[in-house]
Amino acid sequence: MIRLNDNFQSLPKNYLFSEVTKKVQNFKQQNPDKELIRMDIGDVTLPLFPCVVEEINRAVEDLAFKATFKGYGPEQGYLFLRDSIAEYEYARHAIDISSDEIFISDGAKSDLGNLGNLFSVDCKVAVMNPSYPAYIDDNVMDGRAGSLKNGVYSNIIYIDCDPENNFMPNLPETVPDIIYLCFPNNPTGEGITKSELEKWVGYCLKNNSLIIYDAAYADYVRERHIVKSVYEIRDADKVAIEIRSFSKNAGFTGLRCGYTVVPKRLLGTYSNGVKESVHDLWNRRQTTKFNGASYISQKGATAIYTDDGRKAVRSATDYYLKNAGMLKEKLKDLGFECYGAINSPYVWVKSKVGKDSWEFFSLLLENCGITSTPGIGFGSKGSGYIRLTGFNSNENTLRAIEKLDLLNK
Amino acid sequence: MIRLNDNFQSLPKNYLFSEVTKKVQNFKQQNPDKELIRMDIGDVTLPLFPCVVEEINRAVEDLAFKATFKGYGPEQGYLFLRDSIAEYEYARHAIDISSDEIFISDGAKSDLGNLGNLFSVDCKVAVMNPSYPAYIDDNVMDGRAGSLKNGVYSNIIYIDCDPENNFMPNLPETVPDIIYLCFPNNPTGEGITKSELEKWVGYCLKNNSLIIYDAAYADYVRERHIVKSVYEIRDADKVAIEIRSFSKNAGFTGLRCGYTVVPKRLLGTYSNGVKESVHDLWNRRQTTKFNGASYISQKGATAIYTDDGRKAVRSATDYYLKNAGMLKEKLKDLGFECYGAINSPYVWVKSKVGKDSWEFFSLLLENCGITSTPGIGFGSKGSGYIRLTGFNSNENTLRAIEKLDLLNK
Repeated sequence: MIRLNDNFQSLPKNYLFSEVTKKVQNFKQQNPDKELIRMDIGDVTLPLFPCVVEEINRAVEDLAFKATFKGYGPEQGYLFLRDSIAEYEYARHAIDISSDEIFISDGAKSDLGNLGNLFSVDCKVAVMNPSYPAYIDDNVMDGRAGSLKNGVYSNIIYIDCDPENNFMPNLPETVPDIIYLCFPNNPTGEGITKSELEKWVGYCLKNNSLIIYDAAYADYVRERHIVKSVYEIRDADKVAIEIRSFSKNAGFTGLRCGYTVVPKRLLGTYSNGVKESVHDLWNRRQTTKFNGASYISQKGATAIYTDDGRKAVRSATDYYLKNAGMLKEKLKDLGFECYGAINSPYVWVKSKVGKDSWEFFSLLLENCGITSTPGIGFGSKGSGYIRLTGFNSNENTLRAIEKLDLLNK
Repeated sequence: MIRLNDNFQSLPKNYLFSEVTKKVQNFKQQNPDKELIRMDIGDVTLPLFPCVVEEINRAVEDLAFKATFKGYGPEQGYLFLRDSIAEYEYARHAIDISSDEIFISDGAKSDLGNLGNLFSVDCKVAVMNPSYPAYIDDNVMDGRAGSLKNGVYSNIIYIDCDPENNFMPNLPETVPDIIYLCFPNNPTGEGITKSELEKWVGYCLKNNSLIIYDAAYADYVRERHIVKSVYEIRDADKVAIEIRSFSKNAGFTGLRCGYTVVPKRLLGTYSNGVKESVHDLWNRRQTTKFNGASYISQKGATAIYTDDGRKAVRSATDYYLKNAGMLKEKLKDLGFECYGAINSPYVWVKSKVGKDSWEFFSLLLENCGITSTPGIGFGSKGSGYIRLTGFNSNENTLRAIEKLDLLNK
């Protein structure tokens, strides 16, 4: 019999985004002449950098001729890219991560989903509340979440993040085996300080827990005291896997390329007490179930690690940060509590009406023609908030800011 | 505690390919002046087709400008490619598969590995012996294989394929829940007839079992009575998932693009008896754990479905088939039993010395300077065979054929 994975029955029936779509479509039908400005975009809008395009063109040329053709690459990624990452992201910041601890991926979402393969289904998982919904959904499919009741999974430890703790998660009383941390955070937009993250690394070293550190927005960090990589913390390579992406800093959302660092000092334990290198396990998983990222994407990514590439990353992230910053300032002027937008492209805005995000969402849509993401989509602690992003164009962001004056009318 | 997935402890310690590498390196050291001809290559060697390169160049241009930039695409793939596949691979062969039953992937290996997410770990799995080793390894990681003893997993049903049954698997007595079939087959090179495959589809319809049909070599089929797609069989869309790839027919091994057909009529059952669409489950898995294949690769793949593209696929597969065919003829002249090479780029050669593949492997290496893949790497029934491929250049293949005369000296 074609017997299904029962865990899929426990997945949340997520109507949030279809509900958003429906409400936006209704608005369009009822207001065919009104402009709609999308401030809920999670995708970049600037084109690829010229230096990336040049390198990609060279890669295509390679594949067009027999003498330079490249077929299957190493499942772990080409060394030319792994070396560049090790040098620019780690060695230059005095962090000791070697090229062979870096696995090139086709994007953070795949690796976030597939890392679960390595760990026991009995692992207790902790996630920040609010957070990117895939952390929970991935673990539901794997069978680690338990049963769902009133939007809460029985086996998930939710670590609340709200203004009371400055959106910094507190160490949980029940010790998790696996902890998902995302900084700078999506959706709150807040970064983490070195001293805050040291607490987490210390906690994990003491309890032998794993941190899956999602650093997709690392290149948005502008403040010196805010952490970019988890490995800035001493001995973090004994407890943490870091997931990075070229999507939000270099516009690779359509190209599909990122990387995951699985340090050699990170050990796990089988139920019989035998210890094993998590690095070796991930290597075994990837060589069996993955065939490497596109040669073209990997070649393109090397251009990010040139002088031109570094400048372009800075300029693109500055552009999105400026948009997010302007939105935040305007909303603060209008009397809203706002977070983020300093080290991240996200603005997290507290509603002045209602508590379920939807009233605020509707008000923004109907009064201003602005779309947002209701915070409840990121967890119960997102209730009463909406997320706006800096990813639209500067012109559209300026128009959205003008429209925000209609909010109080 | 960082508790690991115990199933990884049951993985085979696969020394085959490192053993091959070691023996080849030894040969090189001891014979620095002797030419080495690689006839074990599983990767294509011809460059991308001009029409594919043109389309890729246009796609890169799209990403280089703001007005035409593409970010995240649909997780299921772009409709422009799904429509082309539905039309060219299915509708034109009078097979009823719709665009939204086709999921674009970053390659067959990923989907083969990830499809396991959808099914219960209690499913009983059958594989052909010999076959591509990942079918078993994927299921070992998922926990479906049982314990390993003398190279045999306690919960896997091995379906023997040898000259006695013309390399056609017999229906197993114990009914599996999931059956991996690969035709034209890697490594034996043999295709399956419609009447043979009808038996399997009938068996699965009767027993409610699933076929995971690996058709990576479909475009090598030359004989009319040999099946290209499992959906040529009536009602196969109720029992079969088909995995296809642009790697072996269009040289996409470095670009990473393929597709998997999950028909809407295919239903699975949860342990509580509830039935669910496997198509919907795969869609849920992919939207949570995958972010689509590269826009560039998908655009390039559309060029395969043009007149120029069709001709180029035919010409490239003809080239590799010709190489394989010449190898086979020569080996037959030398008195070897040979299989495959008519509807596939593989030649499956029975040893005249020894039974564990290695003696034949060593003889070919030492006498002729030719590398091969020992059949034992594909399962116990591969013992006593080696696999040669048509993927090297025509010139190198001709030189290998000359060298084969040294085999009997």
